[in-house]
Amino acid sequence: MDQDRIVIFDTTLRDGEQSPGASMNLEEKLGVASLLEEMGVDVIEAGFPIASNGDFEAVSKIAGIVTRSTICGLARATRNDIERCAEAIRPAPLKRIHTFISTSPLHMKYKLQMAPERVLEAVTESVTLARNLVDDVEWSAEDGSRTEHDFLCRCVEAAIAAGARTINIPDTVGYTVPDEYAALIAMLIERVPNIDKAILSVHCHNDLGLAVANSLAAVKAGARQVECTINGLGERAGNAALEEIVMGLKTRADRLPYTTGIKTELITRASRLVSTITGIFVQPNKAIVGKNAFAHESGIHQDGMLKNAQTYEIMTPESVGLNQSTLVLGKHSGRAAFKDKLKTLGYSLGDNAIEDAFRRFKDLADRKKDVFDEDVQALLGDAGVGTVQRIRFLSLEVLCGSKQPPYADLELEIDGVARRVRSTGDGPVDATFHAIQELFPHPARLQLYQVQAVTQGTDAQAEVAVRLEEDGKTVSGQGADTDTLVASARAYVNALNKLLVKRQKTAPEALRA
Amino acid sequence: MDQDRIVIFDTTLRDGEQSPGASMNLEEKLGVASLLEEMGVDVIEAGFPIASNGDFEAVSKIAGIVTRSTICGLARATRNDIERCAEAIRPAPLKRIHTFISTSPLHMKYKLQMAPERVLEAVTESVTLARNLVDDVEWSAEDGSRTEHDFLCRCVEAAIAAGARTINIPDTVGYTVPDEYAALIAMLIERVPNIDKAILSVHCHNDLGLAVANSLAAVKAGARQVECTINGLGERAGNAALEEIVMGLKTRADRLPYTTGIKTELITRASRLVSTITGIFVQPNKAIVGKNAFAHESGIHQDGMLKNAQTYEIMTPESVGLNQSTLVLGKHSGRAAFKDKLKTLGYSLGDNAIEDAFRRFKDLADRKKDVFDEDVQALLGDAGVGTVQRIRFLSLEVLCGSKQPPYADLELEIDGVARRVRSTGDGPVDATFHAIQELFPHPARLQLYQVQAVTQGTDAQAEVAVRLEEDGKTVSGQGADTDTLVASARAYVNALNKLLVKRQKTAPEALRA
Repeated sequence: MDQDRIVIFDTTLRDGEQSPGASMNLEEKLGVASLLEEMGVDVIEAGFPIASNGDFEAVSKIAGIVTRSTICGLARATRNDIERCAEAIRPAPLKRIHTFISTSPLHMKYKLQMAPERVLEAVTESVTLARNLVDDVEWSAEDGSRTEHDFLCRCVEAAIAAGARTINIPDTVGYTVPDEYAALIAMLIERVPNIDKAILSVHCHNDLGLAVANSLAAVKAGARQVECTINGLGERAGNAALEEIVMGLKTRADRLPYTTGIKTELITRASRLVSTITGIFVQPNKAIVGKNAFAHESGIHQDGMLKNAQTYEIMTPESVGLNQSTLVLGKHSGRAAFKDKLKTLGYSLGDNAIEDAFRRFKDLADRKKDVFDEDVQALLGDAGVGTVQRIRFLSLEVLCGSKQPPYADLELEIDGVARRVRSTGDGPVDATFHAIQELFPHPARLQLYQVQAVTQGTDAQAEVAVRLEEDGKTVSGQGADTDTLVASARAYVNALNKLLVKRQKTAPEALRA
Repeated sequence: MDQDRIVIFDTTLRDGEQSPGASMNLEEKLGVASLLEEMGVDVIEAGFPIASNGDFEAVSKIAGIVTRSTICGLARATRNDIERCAEAIRPAPLKRIHTFISTSPLHMKYKLQMAPERVLEAVTESVTLARNLVDDVEWSAEDGSRTEHDFLCRCVEAAIAAGARTINIPDTVGYTVPDEYAALIAMLIERVPNIDKAILSVHCHNDLGLAVANSLAAVKAGARQVECTINGLGERAGNAALEEIVMGLKTRADRLPYTTGIKTELITRASRLVSTITGIFVQPNKAIVGKNAFAHESGIHQDGMLKNAQTYEIMTPESVGLNQSTLVLGKHSGRAAFKDKLKTLGYSLGDNAIEDAFRRFKDLADRKKDVFDEDVQALLGDAGVGTVQRIRFLSLEVLCGSKQPPYADLELEIDGVARRVRSTGDGPVDATFHAIQELFPHPARLQLYQVQAVTQGTDAQAEVAVRLEEDGKTVSGQGADTDTLVASARAYVNALNKLLVKRQKTAPEALRA
């Protein structure tokens, strides 16, 4: 590979999915993986196979459909983890095991409760085991940015000697600053004797708002793989955002003469797909993919833009695929056209799911004049797709306002039986959710409720995201409809179905990294 | 001042307010300014007085109430701008004129259509004029990061010679990268002969996600003022976020040995106030102030946290004022307690506004068991406060659901006369907005509609943000209620009232920078 080619390693499906409430179901993960492959992502970290049967299945299914990107699974430094990971990624033509262990004094003492020498042995053992199962092994020093340099050098050398081709130095807690992190990478290149046999990788968290800057500083210092996520999703303040890394390298190629294989025109679509699926919206003032990123408000700026776009614009909206919303399909569009559109949007669905989505699309097209890509994405973020549905939305009638307590008259199908109830509450949403609670009692607690209009104009669909929490497990559900309350009911039902699946997962949550 | 003390210059009320849809009314601006003062912000850029009568009035009123922070107004390099600015900030005990002109080849040629020598003369003229009016003058080289070094040195030297005490080098288009920007600052310090007579300042935009990193790199290179905004609000992808700058300096004092005067415990309150007022929500994975910033999802992380918080936490939630939501007041609380709470939350309202807010608080307390700080903030983000109200919400009844087209029965008071109509639409929100349109026809277009639950639980208030656009002008309105549709109607009416005020503003929009 070209010396200045940066490997883009996307971990939206692993670290991103670990964001509170961001869990995705199988169909959703397959859709994201397909789009990442189409974008030209080099390595897709598809999950953490040992964490649960659901994670294993997702990694395995993704490994079965993606051919152009390397499919990577995460594993701790144990035989069970590594073997399970190898099994999950087996179907992929290009596959990688990513194994990790903590190397910082704080983590070794409190989290691992292991002596450094024992950790060092585990590095060799785990990488050796992984290399016996696949050719492509990545090793990560968890909390690497807070690790003692001498010890880090010894671990890295051992990992490479055992056969790791990629060495990742994560800034697990988002603590480092650019010059410090660049110096760390430079130190490894200088001191580790066999460093030329591996690619150095970085994985930055954004707790201080520096994840992208730290990653780019590390690239200048010699790192050649960047781990990142769509929309900067990830634990706490998230990971380095793929779109910012890629557009930074592209826009400032003069100062950062490195290339990636990313088709930047797919960035906007990927951002929308991930935010729709997870219900984690992107703020308007987010770089590259925020709604205002290319919007010029003040008169002075507008004036300058008219005279010469470069006065205030350093990249074009087209370069990230931000065009005028495209009219997708009319009410007379047939199944073939609809299926084709789904494929363009990055979805690969089973026949039942397509049929369900198509029915809802026709229903929407009857009520809404213009149906945009975003409308279709919103429909697909919804209950109809993928999840096993013990509970199905049938109908809803709500009366509300400022004059009397609201009521919600709700009909659900539960395990195949239609049931109906009328409930009240503090508002129409509360009344609707009470009705769900009455029909299907559950201890989960509402953590988040938000609504966005999918496109502009008053006839837009509302897209509702709901997050439920039960025993420390969180799930998020989405619903879309021109009626906000119907969308709300669908979103809650969607979340509840996901929760029921999650309850059944066999592996304990404590296994998730 | 201490050599390593960084001046925090907040421009939420100027650059932040220029975000599409972020316009704030007078009362809202006063509330933000009071809180910024309480936080210890050194300089508050309160607005751009020449831009409109409303901007002038806001700057002047803020200058009349803030005593501990310097109040700054923006002015282009013209006599009218500078004199108007001086007039607006006159009431302030500590006051600054901030005048700017573009210095990059691209901006001078296309935007200003002025020769460089003429620009240089304008620098001296404008700073001299400003210094005749106030002692504290800041000069900015717009598009400074894309300016030729020789020319920039000459402009900076001229501005200092004419009496500017602060020299700001903005990265207007968010184009620079940390090492390049640091080198620019170092170059100025080395080459400009009178540079020791001024403080160097930076103002970074986040188009490539590097605003905070660029600012911190500049500080290491010698800059001693950072211009920033709460939540990173601002044109396009926004400005450097105040909270990230301040917490970066605090958390990494070992590598960044600089101090600020900011009370970090007020960061969360400021973030919520600004997002409530502008309707521009912060994404969950935003550093420092996102909802997930201190949330640990995965089992491995939770396990580590229990063993030792430092394993995954580099700063405490308490350090940014993120505590458990505090129960504010019960239904038996009186006016005095309520007024006291408003003051704590940073609001300074007139008697009528307090009375209106108190009435709505009592109404809410009747319906909602626990009333939190956030609930009160949401109420105050709403129609009751500040704006001249030609249109007032009276009552609403909505019937909707999946069974029949919805209707909205709406009563508004328009210019003192109660009027009522029943409308339908594609959903309950659409029907409600149609009813408003019927009662008060207007050409504005709905650009954004979003709803968030203010706190957790199904009995939470819904906080609705609506953005309207008319002839390139955007306004945003907020509404809060336990009934989502009542909140929606209130938000729309609030936006419409703001739009009516904005229509009357005399100065053309093209004057806004």
